[in-house]
Amino acid sequence: MTNDQALRQRALEVIPNGMYGHENAAWLPDGFPQFFTRASGTRLWDTDGKEYIDFLCAYGPNLFGYNEPSLTRAALAQLELGDTMTGPGPVMVELAEKFVDAVEHATWTIFCKNGTDATTMALMCARAHKGRKKILVAKGAYHGAAPWCGVSPEGLTAEDRVNMIPFEYNNAESLKQTLEAHAGEVAAVFATPFRHEVFEDQIEPSPDYARRTRELCDEFDTLLVIDEVRTGFRLARGCSWEAFGVRPDLSTWGKALGNGYPISALAGSENLREAAKKIFVTGSYWFSAVPMAAAVQSLHLVKTTDYLERTLHLGKTLRDGLAEQAARHGFDLRQTGPVQMPQMLFADDKDQVIGRKWTLEVVRRGVYLHPFHNMFLNAAMTDKDIELTLEATESAFNALKATAS
Amino acid sequence: MTNDQALRQRALEVIPNGMYGHENAAWLPDGFPQFFTRASGTRLWDTDGKEYIDFLCAYGPNLFGYNEPSLTRAALAQLELGDTMTGPGPVMVELAEKFVDAVEHATWTIFCKNGTDATTMALMCARAHKGRKKILVAKGAYHGAAPWCGVSPEGLTAEDRVNMIPFEYNNAESLKQTLEAHAGEVAAVFATPFRHEVFEDQIEPSPDYARRTRELCDEFDTLLVIDEVRTGFRLARGCSWEAFGVRPDLSTWGKALGNGYPISALAGSENLREAAKKIFVTGSYWFSAVPMAAAVQSLHLVKTTDYLERTLHLGKTLRDGLAEQAARHGFDLRQTGPVQMPQMLFADDKDQVIGRKWTLEVVRRGVYLHPFHNMFLNAAMTDKDIELTLEATESAFNALKATAS
Repeated sequence: MTNDQALRQRALEVIPNGMYGHENAAWLPDGFPQFFTRASGTRLWDTDGKEYIDFLCAYGPNLFGYNEPSLTRAALAQLELGDTMTGPGPVMVELAEKFVDAVEHATWTIFCKNGTDATTMALMCARAHKGRKKILVAKGAYHGAAPWCGVSPEGLTAEDRVNMIPFEYNNAESLKQTLEAHAGEVAAVFATPFRHEVFEDQIEPSPDYARRTRELCDEFDTLLVIDEVRTGFRLARGCSWEAFGVRPDLSTWGKALGNGYPISALAGSENLREAAKKIFVTGSYWFSAVPMAAAVQSLHLVKTTDYLERTLHLGKTLRDGLAEQAARHGFDLRQTGPVQMPQMLFADDKDQVIGRKWTLEVVRRGVYLHPFHNMFLNAAMTDKDIELTLEATESAFNALKATAS
Repeated sequence: MTNDQALRQRALEVIPNGMYGHENAAWLPDGFPQFFTRASGTRLWDTDGKEYIDFLCAYGPNLFGYNEPSLTRAALAQLELGDTMTGPGPVMVELAEKFVDAVEHATWTIFCKNGTDATTMALMCARAHKGRKKILVAKGAYHGAAPWCGVSPEGLTAEDRVNMIPFEYNNAESLKQTLEAHAGEVAAVFATPFRHEVFEDQIEPSPDYARRTRELCDEFDTLLVIDEVRTGFRLARGCSWEAFGVRPDLSTWGKALGNGYPISALAGSENLREAAKKIFVTGSYWFSAVPMAAAVQSLHLVKTTDYLERTLHLGKTLRDGLAEQAARHGFDLRQTGPVQMPQMLFADDKDQVIGRKWTLEVVRRGVYLHPFHNMFLNAAMTDKDIELTLEATESAFNALKATAS
């Protein structure tokens, strides 16, 4: 029995299903590890000592590399002083200033812990401002795991979602019709910078759709919320849709903001400040200073390094290399979404039968890919890492062909 | 202008109201600091260099002293290995085993970040198990800051709370009548180990009431949830009502569990395991290893030290000393709740006019007390700290009399 198997057996006794949520490896093929002993830079080690180049990046938080030295120094310096105290440290003000500086539409921010905290506050803030109940969300879009937005109906009531109204993503006509059908009742439209659902190709919106979303929100006198929890600082150095000239009223952030230190945030435009003053929101660790010190350093790296261009370059090298391999081996590999947040699914591959086999072969070769969740590159990766990755995927395609024939 | 005032001015620009939630010092008299530079053991330092003996303990998390050396060592050793990774560390299994061992009724647990995450999961888990919507909560009881339970109606919809049914705390007849009125519809009764609301005397339940609560839950075929987020490990080494022979079906934990490292938890009895398997709950940092390593060490200190007896002894010394001082100075100081989680309010003191003046005088003398929120002792405190505290309170009573006359 491997160490991972032994740990899973013990976990089954004391944790429902042995694990919960998005890091439950029971959804993955046998051979994917559940537990990890160590992480450094671009690498992960499982409990049996196997090393991986990690393309999950903790499901998003790892943008600059695990234990990035300047981030670790900033965090440790603050930890020495104090973390969770009876009030925030001065670093909270510094972070808030630098964060609203990075997020162009924002003049204020509220820090919290979970991405779901941020999206839930956006909902409350929009409702407090407009005095309306309904919220439009793209069908199937993931905005967190609270009763109003989680992916399973178990444990929920009809009332939890009665005010959530679905529309079709990247379809301005659907958005318009939905706004018309609920005219005067809609507090906000939730937008996702691009669609990044499990089991699905990713969908990048057209710039026209993004701009039309803002126009429709204005026409129907409703607010625009952009959920950047997963995308934040990975697509741009500020809000993702600013490139299209689109500014939201509220944006939600998390994951990469602290590079793994637990922090998320709601950012708001000036018109929402009064509403933000009225809602009551808090959490035991929302004022902790260490994640804020780490986030200050994250924002410094965002501003002063070529991390974005580097992850774009590496992502493109990987995508091109995989496309060439797949074509040569006769596989229809669909690579969708931004190159630095790739989704890889095989065409006509119900239940990811091929995808699961292929990613397992890749994982066995020391590169951690996921068969149905979008992945992430980080700025610690080098051309050499992509080269090693492509060697593993080439070998995995060969193995896949061998088992298929 | 003090450093604290300068920071507050800057904060007003970028944070709604300059601060939010329970750590917003705008609710406190002028002279209470908003920001803190440093914390160590029993002490806090504000940004103007003033030192305090801290009786807020980060509003609960600090049970063993800030930066308690063995906890810091455990956290740093894990941080060196990895914190937020693509999967949990082995420490998650160790913690889950030790935690369900400490919480007698529990056979499984789910770790999360906010106390509100834990109480919200309890709600979902109870509903998934019973297939019913309604949840009974004591009038005015605090169970977190989500839409179903927060203290302000701003930004909420009627639907958020339509299934939350109030009853009178410590009143078995009220609980019974409420259960009768909603017979067959109630998924769970939320109990709070004792009442600890702001602005109010704390109320400790009678053992009879605690036992009757369990009996009524059984008679009406509903579940009992005990919210230990604030009280956990401060009243007992396990569930608070075990002393009365009462076992809940679910209990919620946070704050002291990681001594300030961000972790909270839902713990469940065996009968709820299947329901817990069905709900989908997760968060970006729920699997982070550092807070789990800290919590393992917290539980070790809970099990192997006399922290509980020590905080009881110190709390009693403080309460007795304050009672003597107040009586001698002619003040009716109401000290309620467990001595290690004291609430201090003056009788007939609308809007805490006397309480605010007195606590401000105490704060000026280097002891951080709160005029309307319950406080906390920690196990790093010594008899000498209580002696210094009583010197400050004695002097503050004298100052109060001087300004009153």
